[in-house]
Amino acid sequence: MPDIARRWDDLGDHNSLVEFVDACLRGVAQVVLQNNPLTGLLILVAVGWGAVENGQPRILGGAVVGLVVGTATALALQVDRASWRKGLYGFSPVLTGIAIPTFLDHRPLMWLYLVLGAAATTVVTLALNAVFKRWGLTAFTFPFVLTTWVLLMAAYQFDRFTVLTRLQPTFPGEGRHATGSFDWDLVPTFLRGISQVFLTDSWVSGLIIVLGLLVNSRWSALFAVVGSAGATLLALWFGADGASLEKGLFGFNAVLTAIAVGAVLHRPGVAVTGYTLFGIALTLFVQMALTTVLTPLGIPVLTGPFNIATWLLLLPERHFAPVPNHERVRDTVVSVLRRSV
Amino acid sequence: MPDIARRWDDLGDHNSLVEFVDACLRGVAQVVLQNNPLTGLLILVAVGWGAVENGQPRILGGAVVGLVVGTATALALQVDRASWRKGLYGFSPVLTGIAIPTFLDHRPLMWLYLVLGAAATTVVTLALNAVFKRWGLTAFTFPFVLTTWVLLMAAYQFDRFTVLTRLQPTFPGEGRHATGSFDWDLVPTFLRGISQVFLTDSWVSGLIIVLGLLVNSRWSALFAVVGSAGATLLALWFGADGASLEKGLFGFNAVLTAIAVGAVLHRPGVAVTGYTLFGIALTLFVQMALTTVLTPLGIPVLTGPFNIATWLLLLPERHFAPVPNHERVRDTVVSVLRRSV
Amino acid sequence: MPDIARRWDDLGDHNSLVEFVDACLRGVAQVVLQNNPLTGLLILVAVGWGAVENGQPRILGGAVVGLVVGTATALALQVDRASWRKGLYGFSPVLTGIAIPTFLDHRPLMWLYLVLGAAATTVVTLALNAVFKRWGLTAFTFPFVLTTWVLLMAAYQFDRFTVLTRLQPTFPGEGRHATGSFDWDLVPTFLRGISQVFLTDSWVSGLIIVLGLLVNSRWSALFAVVGSAGATLLALWFGADGASLEKGLFGFNAVLTAIAVGAVLHRPGVAVTGYTLFGIALTLFVQMALTTVLTPLGIPVLTGPFNIATWLLLLPERHFAPVPNHERVRDTVVSVLRRSV
Repeated sequence: MPDIARRWDDLGDHNSLVEFVDACLRGVAQVVLQNNPLTGLLILVAVGWGAVENGQPRILGGAVVGLVVGTATALALQVDRASWRKGLYGFSPVLTGIAIPTFLDHRPLMWLYLVLGAAATTVVTLALNAVFKRWGLTAFTFPFVLTTWVLLMAAYQFDRFTVLTRLQPTFPGEGRHATGSFDWDLVPTFLRGISQVFLTDSWVSGLIIVLGLLVNSRWSALFAVVGSAGATLLALWFGADGASLEKGLFGFNAVLTAIAVGAVLHRPGVAVTGYTLFGIALTLFVQMALTTVLTPLGIPVLTGPFNIATWLLLLPERHFAPVPNHERVRDTVVSVLRRSV
Repeated sequence: MPDIARRWDDLGDHNSLVEFVDACLRGVAQVVLQNNPLTGLLILVAVGWGAVENGQPRILGGAVVGLVVGTATALALQVDRASWRKGLYGFSPVLTGIAIPTFLDHRPLMWLYLVLGAAATTVVTLALNAVFKRWGLTAFTFPFVLTTWVLLMAAYQFDRFTVLTRLQPTFPGEGRHATGSFDWDLVPTFLRGISQVFLTDSWVSGLIIVLGLLVNSRWSALFAVVGSAGATLLALWFGADGASLEKGLFGFNAVLTAIAVGAVLHRPGVAVTGYTLFGIALTLFVQMALTTVLTPLGIPVLTGPFNIATWLLLLPERHFAPVPNHERVRDTVVSVLRRSV
Repeated sequence: MPDIARRWDDLGDHNSLVEFVDACLRGVAQVVLQNNPLTGLLILVAVGWGAVENGQPRILGGAVVGLVVGTATALALQVDRASWRKGLYGFSPVLTGIAIPTFLDHRPLMWLYLVLGAAATTVVTLALNAVFKRWGLTAFTFPFVLTTWVLLMAAYQFDRFTVLTRLQPTFPGEGRHATGSFDWDLVPTFLRGISQVFLTDSWVSGLIIVLGLLVNSRWSALFAVVGSAGATLLALWFGADGASLEKGLFGFNAVLTAIAVGAVLHRPGVAVTGYTLFGIALTLFVQMALTTVLTPLGIPVLTGPFNIATWLLLLPERHFAPVPNHERVRDTVVSVLRRSV
């Protein structure tokens, strides 16, 4: 294995196509804050599995198109090459590429919309990173969130598109209890909470993603599971909607918060773990609130709650939460700050 | 009186419990931008009076729990001690502690929610102060506003809570005129405008709060009354909802703007008073606009309009509005900027 | 012509009234990012023509009152004189002055509201420019947008006003297709797209505005037409609402983005033109999304989409898009950054 990895890296240094593919795969992995092409490959397999299982293989196509267009747009805009090679310009467009065919009906124009949207995601990544740099933060996946919200809300105004969010726009508190109850099948629910990071509803995909995390970082794999389980159980306790619970929809934002706050951006430890557990609860509350905000607009929260909660948790810069050492930084999303923006 | 005050300060220097109680009392006073434990004590009495008068004594309990949890969380997060002693980490959590039992129905889980919410308010205080520091501002009471909005909007998604805002979610302009007319009992209305700063509907409480202001700053007491009266009369002239008018709901944000802009953050004077009167009108318009924004979401504006209007008034940094001199700064909320964040 | 211009400039240096009128006229021109009193005069003629053509001459009155009050408020607040003379404190208030009589019913109190709103627009200009300065940006026309949104949403809460936006508050996707079809009369539509920058629905006014641009900058005139045509055709292709299309309502934001990004803030060129075409599409999508956001609130998007899209396009600071050289900067809205805020 390490031997193959070394050969792959060598290839990437000499062959532009391999370098591009490598940057794309790392881009997929950076969604869960990992810098590893194998992690990215396993996640693509997970997305593909989920797409086929749910009868929508075009979603895998959307992921690949979004990833390639977004990564290529970053090249055309001459972004910092080191950050680009780490996949830091791929992780938001790949999510836009998954979201568009998930939430819009299938027609040729959808693909043009997806291409424009993926390119816009890269421009928005550059713009928002420039904004957040002022506080020593990155925009995380918020460029994906913002761009996709804009594309979906714009689609409501165009006859040529139909928005499939199945979120009937309504007032908060109306018609909320009609969607069935939770069947207590906990482990698959926790795994679906992980697959939903990639808008995928499949416990098998969740398992493959955990594998993808394991090949790069055990702490990240552990905190992913803790995040999904913690937020799902809390949502269950407080009486959240059963149908959404079962699909893992209350887990995926906390998965990302837990990886970011507990494993990647701080040195794992007792105080950090306590802060992360608090962060998981905060992420769930922010997600529920954002659901209420977006209900009248008929759009989904996406990974917005993860971004908001993680900014709130990182901004205080507390003593038990040192910024990671230089070696660590080199491999994480945070390094985009120092170099390219 | 000054003798008791001196002995209390001496006690606080040597006894941790007295120091903690002192920081908590100052925290209550900092809601109205005062640094004085006696002011805080009088305001707690006012909140208690209002809670009992309205048959909801648990609101006083919520205030105390929120205040203690928020202040203790700040200690645990090792914030700057000097700012902490001035109550700068107590004033948002005490408001969260009042708001939760006011707007959610009574049940044991509500108290857990309140404790989590008060701790979150302190984290959000640290986060937002770090954001606003870039412009030489603090977040004022916005950490309370943001956290409480999140908690209330999240509660809409949980079966275990019922939101009692009595704001039937609706479109702006619908069913607005059904709520009765104003009875022209002006002075109690002005005083209720002051008590509503602490979400309390009682003219007696308003009077006690004015007393609390008087023991620390006559200018603040004067501008509190001017803010409440000015905004209420303007709302009356423009034809705002009579029932809300009578409860003082159009006064409390202007009370805070008037104290902040007219008495505490600038040296009182003619030009500053003119700017403050303009600020009172601005606060009312922002409050009315925010009411329209939040109507479809079924949540109250809280002190959001005060924060927005005051930021807009301070950002221009005009000639007639010098930042206060160092001695003054030492005792106001602004000092949080220089020291702890 | 140049002779008259020179004499006018001489007069302005010695006569305060001429200086004030000159600053006001430049203020009108700065809406479309031009620093030329003749451009401003022609645009005022265009606004007047549209007001009379649509039977609402009071709109011209509102424009003049807003312009004078906003410009005078800036003087009273002692802003940087050089920026003031370039009209940089007039362009937002003139738009507020047009918007208030357009969207509120006619009654004496409306004029007081307009005067307060124009003064507030200047305060908000100072405040938002201070915010955006941190990223080397200005607030463009966003002070007008924010202030007018606040005034309209506040008006919903006041019995004394009736909001005439004719945007029945509703959920996105509801009742959208009832408003008729487009009649393919393209050139007048493109010109109305330009006149709508000043909330005016008249192709004659659009033509006069193009003339006004031509006397100062051919590139600006060209990009104004490209922006209006591009966004209108894209909206037509994607199936946007026919009635709004015909009124030019999908063109005006792109007009401003195209002038700003294509002609004024970058040196015109091939790469910049490509980026501008992308920016026109981005502006349209942002406008459609903002329409969905604001539909439940019953208020119009105004020039919000131009501001948002242009910030997103400028923040990345890409290689092909150098900030303009010093001579250029001296005459554009950007110079407000360096000098006065």
